[in-house]
Amino acid sequence: MELHRREFASLLLGVAAGLAAGPADAQTDPLPSWNDGAAKDAILKFVRATTDRSSPDFVQPEERIATFDQDGTLWVEHPMYTQVVYCFDRLPVVVKAKPELADVEPFKTVLAGDREAIVKLPLDDLLKIAAATLTGMDVDQFRDEARRWIASGRDPRWKRLYTELTYLPQLELLKYLRGAGYKTYIVTGGGQDFVRAYAERVYGIPPEQVVGTAGGLSFTYAPDGRPELIKEPKLLINDNNAGKAESIHLMIGRRPRFAFGNSTGDRQMCEYVKGGDGARLSMLVLHDDDKREYAYGPAAGLPDTKVGRFTQELYDEAQRDGWIVVSMKNDWRRIFAFD
Amino acid sequence: MELHRREFASLLLGVAAGLAAGPADAQTDPLPSWNDGAAKDAILKFVRATTDRSSPDFVQPEERIATFDQDGTLWVEHPMYTQVVYCFDRLPVVVKAKPELADVEPFKTVLAGDREAIVKLPLDDLLKIAAATLTGMDVDQFRDEARRWIASGRDPRWKRLYTELTYLPQLELLKYLRGAGYKTYIVTGGGQDFVRAYAERVYGIPPEQVVGTAGGLSFTYAPDGRPELIKEPKLLINDNNAGKAESIHLMIGRRPRFAFGNSTGDRQMCEYVKGGDGARLSMLVLHDDDKREYAYGPAAGLPDTKVGRFTQELYDEAQRDGWIVVSMKNDWRRIFAFD
Repeated sequence: MELHRREFASLLLGVAAGLAAGPADAQTDPLPSWNDGAAKDAILKFVRATTDRSSPDFVQPEERIATFDQDGTLWVEHPMYTQVVYCFDRLPVVVKAKPELADVEPFKTVLAGDREAIVKLPLDDLLKIAAATLTGMDVDQFRDEARRWIASGRDPRWKRLYTELTYLPQLELLKYLRGAGYKTYIVTGGGQDFVRAYAERVYGIPPEQVVGTAGGLSFTYAPDGRPELIKEPKLLINDNNAGKAESIHLMIGRRPRFAFGNSTGDRQMCEYVKGGDGARLSMLVLHDDDKREYAYGPAAGLPDTKVGRFTQELYDEAQRDGWIVVSMKNDWRRIFAFD
Repeated sequence: MELHRREFASLLLGVAAGLAAGPADAQTDPLPSWNDGAAKDAILKFVRATTDRSSPDFVQPEERIATFDQDGTLWVEHPMYTQVVYCFDRLPVVVKAKPELADVEPFKTVLAGDREAIVKLPLDDLLKIAAATLTGMDVDQFRDEARRWIASGRDPRWKRLYTELTYLPQLELLKYLRGAGYKTYIVTGGGQDFVRAYAERVYGIPPEQVVGTAGGLSFTYAPDGRPELIKEPKLLINDNNAGKAESIHLMIGRRPRFAFGNSTGDRQMCEYVKGGDGARLSMLVLHDDDKREYAYGPAAGLPDTKVGRFTQELYDEAQRDGWIVVSMKNDWRRIFAFD
């Protein structure tokens, strides 16, 4: 009797699923902010090939992993990574608690607000600022502070929340991939804890699917006896370049089927993904739209910048190995939801 | 028109779901291998409280995270951790490739098969054996080797595959929690790559939900140009004691609602879980069944052993802070599926 009821139930589920995915849905474009062209075609073809059971490239649902860089791939990274802005914004609070830092470099330069000098700060100085603003507190406290800032901080060009500067075509792509059974991950050179503070709300990507640069933690007890995890100024995972492929294995343990990046920092991730068997797709955003966003490379004769370098060498490798280079100017009909 | 079809589809889905979970199912015990008692009650009460929308302790589905230790919690750890047996079994293959190791300690002792001497090897020697057998190869090669071994290696007492020595009550619990919307993780002091090789098949837990002790990796290229990730003899994450709470944050990024362990190595994980707001449950297996499995503590007057220590201090902390201690002897009706 129970078997009968179950068979009947599964029959109904099948009929219902068939109705839900009727012809009207098939005609709806899942990527309306993408212009027709090679990039959009490659995505649609890849998803069909890996999800159609009769396809020779069919991929089991549990193996459907897609990894996205964040800065310059999911949202604007120019002229300064959002997390760097966060660090600068946090500094006055840190100095209030530790006044002795006010007269010490590089804190002095940042507090003086000298933008030109700030942009030229060497990496070592940036790391000192990162350590002062991103470590020394419990992980929950850090998350709450980051959330407060991200809910109010605005970029200087568009005067909008940073979370509004996410690329609409990519939000559509994340949703489309998830609808096709892909588990979407962020694999970012940015701070894992920082991105986790808003990724679920902004991208629909839960904390456990955000992989990023991470410092050490120390488990300790607060005065009331409650356990705490304090963020330590010690680099544990540098999630850039080769580190991206390595941390994908560490944190996910499966080779992704799909990767999306925009700079040399994403090269090894794209290589790792394409190096697997079966259907694999690696993609890169080329920022070639100086009107609607920014134009920088230096690939394809675009200006060179310090942030998010897309070199000619990377461009050539992409062409040679069948990665798809997405032209922001030509492939994206809309860039932002507010456009 | 489309709306109508969707409404009809969702109506059918609702009817089908209702039929599938009819009254016969509701009366079925989700934990048949657990005896009635405080431990089983605590689990059922916790799951009801956190999944019933009208409960003050209701937990949003995305926050439902449950973490399980493996050795001694999900499967037998006595008299030797399975992964240690694996390392010993692999050693002849390693020495075949590097014959110069045959006359060097501790390899000589292990190759001689002197069980008494092997059991007494100090930690430094075990680490040398681990480095020789678990590192130096690509992650895919390691996974394939581990899978071959786990499909054939048998334990000396029951003469069964190690994967048959998983505890049936815990397999039921994992399934029950997942049915209630919990994402189940393994958080093990054992090697992350080793456990990932079989966890999906054995526990229904995918690689990305296995957190464990992990070494560094190096991204490189094979002679044919394909990217490889080589396992390096360098400890990156020591997933024991405080390391368990720290790596839960690193790998999951949410404080679990439920934790299950069996030794002092799980103490901080259990503390971290219980230290959060709202309903939380921490549990420990006490191995007090010398007939059906093993009896060791040294809590509750049980014999002290080197492997999986459940100290009196841990026992007292559990009593004081409301963790549930599960008596293998009294709380588990059946221990193994083959019983």
